[in-house]
Amino acid sequence: MADIIPMKTADGKKQPSLDPLMKLVSEDLAKVNEAIIRKMDSRVPLIPQLAGHIIAAGGKRVRPMLTLACARMCGYTGTRQIELAASVEMIHTATLLHDDVVDDSDLRRGNDTANVLWGNSASVLVGDFLFSRAFQLMVGDGSLDVLQVLADASAVISEGEVMQLETSNDITTSEEAYLAVIAAKTAALFSAACKVGGQVAMRPADELDALDSFGRNLGVAFQLVDDALDYSAKQAELGKSVGDDFKEGKITLPVLLAVRRGGEEERDFWRRCMENLDQTDDDMAHAQALLAKHNALNDTIDRARHYGAMARDALGMYPDSAAKSALIETVDFCIYRAY
Amino acid sequence: MADIIPMKTADGKKQPSLDPLMKLVSEDLAKVNEAIIRKMDSRVPLIPQLAGHIIAAGGKRVRPMLTLACARMCGYTGTRQIELAASVEMIHTATLLHDDVVDDSDLRRGNDTANVLWGNSASVLVGDFLFSRAFQLMVGDGSLDVLQVLADASAVISEGEVMQLETSNDITTSEEAYLAVIAAKTAALFSAACKVGGQVAMRPADELDALDSFGRNLGVAFQLVDDALDYSAKQAELGKSVGDDFKEGKITLPVLLAVRRGGEEERDFWRRCMENLDQTDDDMAHAQALLAKHNALNDTIDRARHYGAMARDALGMYPDSAAKSALIETVDFCIYRAY
Repeated sequence: MADIIPMKTADGKKQPSLDPLMKLVSEDLAKVNEAIIRKMDSRVPLIPQLAGHIIAAGGKRVRPMLTLACARMCGYTGTRQIELAASVEMIHTATLLHDDVVDDSDLRRGNDTANVLWGNSASVLVGDFLFSRAFQLMVGDGSLDVLQVLADASAVISEGEVMQLETSNDITTSEEAYLAVIAAKTAALFSAACKVGGQVAMRPADELDALDSFGRNLGVAFQLVDDALDYSAKQAELGKSVGDDFKEGKITLPVLLAVRRGGEEERDFWRRCMENLDQTDDDMAHAQALLAKHNALNDTIDRARHYGAMARDALGMYPDSAAKSALIETVDFCIYRAY
Repeated sequence: MADIIPMKTADGKKQPSLDPLMKLVSEDLAKVNEAIIRKMDSRVPLIPQLAGHIIAAGGKRVRPMLTLACARMCGYTGTRQIELAASVEMIHTATLLHDDVVDDSDLRRGNDTANVLWGNSASVLVGDFLFSRAFQLMVGDGSLDVLQVLADASAVISEGEVMQLETSNDITTSEEAYLAVIAAKTAALFSAACKVGGQVAMRPADELDALDSFGRNLGVAFQLVDDALDYSAKQAELGKSVGDDFKEGKITLPVLLAVRRGGEEERDFWRRCMENLDQTDDDMAHAQALLAKHNALNDTIDRARHYGAMARDALGMYPDSAAKSALIETVDFCIYRAY
């Protein structure tokens, strides 16, 4: 993608980043991290070891930052958002542990996965532990409305994961089926994370709906871009891992678009690689060439842009604030990181 | 064990059974089953298929029956116990699905396990789904006290499972470490199941403590007998599966007692079978002979009897009732089923 996309945004502004969001919530986020570490403690040493491994490796903390920033945008000045943001991140971490078992992954963000280091059994059980501890945190918060949102999100996530299992390695998957999977496995927790931020601030239903919509559309955009990045030449240049989805035969939108737009010979290629997992060393490069030929990555990003626009508009009812503009820039960042 | 134990109880009464408990709660239990089936429904067909398989195969429903009977003993006449008993059973089912993955089991109660039929990935994810749906049911009930009890139990269960993973295949495990594992992985949910029955009836703290103690001690007794039955000649005669723990090298009290009481040669045998999992066809028979030589099964049952006595005494504060005597007979049944 690096060859076709400008390094600036369309209107010539500087590139969007996560910095404003991180700056906005940095104090709270430090407390969230403390809460997570406290909550994963156990008399069984393997638990903090394994959980600490994945939490330390742990990405950008986008989900808990969303809870913190949404609470801030809603004018909340209390402390409930801390433990709830921690529980959001712990639910996410539990699903990552189980995902890596299900996908038989051996690398996550360049590190050995927990299942490689400690085995599948430990990953399954520590995932269960983190999930239970996340629920303890929510129960401790004491709001049944918040519990409802996060319990519903958890059920939807696992339903989405099973759905993905059923569509996996099937190149005839429809775009709708793919969107249903990412709505469930990714967007549901983004939306819950945002909504919880409004719930602690006791905002009315229409605002909670707006936060829900913001998170949901941001989550879909985020996942679409993630799926495109897995085939991105730019990612590879930056030393980030690419081709994981391809290796696993995970069906994502770039592939679905290329399959639909290609001829029978190309479909044979995709079938061999994605359905039969019969791959040679050159196949990833050929896959990238086919995606470029059909403009599949750019069109995936275009789809992401559509959901990003909906996310931005969902916040229309909120007056300008540092929190609001940090959240808007997060949407922009999620899309522009593709370039 | 069949050769050494009388078919009647010590005081010559008829053998205890689960019948009074089952009769007491049969109407409610039918509603619990309906709630479970309703709650495992999903637009993803694999979910009700897989969950239905393990729930249909599903044992005696001891845990939800405890919730129902304890609510009855506490004089409760409402309907909250139904969905809470369903959530207790769903938590149990979720842990069974994950256990079978962790233990790489291929048979449960004579049927192929879900992981054999649908694969480990589906078992992990559907377990997560059942667990989330159980939480939805509890949230729907709306009592934070109940949620606290069941969230705590879930965290303790998964902690116990990890603890078991760490002690597995280690014949030097102490009896205390073994007891800590079964207190966590089995007794915690028994105790929560009973306590919830008192919570819906709004009973005071001392009664909830009594129910907690009843369930906890019953759970320990239940697991001790289960562990003995896995080596029981009587079980084998009845066509029930034996030797599963032995095959997996799972360290249980009968083995720990025999290891402690045997000489170096016997310890070599246990080490080879349980630690190295290097077993021949004759080894199970030899293991049973060693357990008999050291009276390890009877002494395991004796330990169970001790916890059973504590369970019975815990109910001392309750006046006589059909529910109370059904619960007491459940304790007796849990122990006498060993014979």
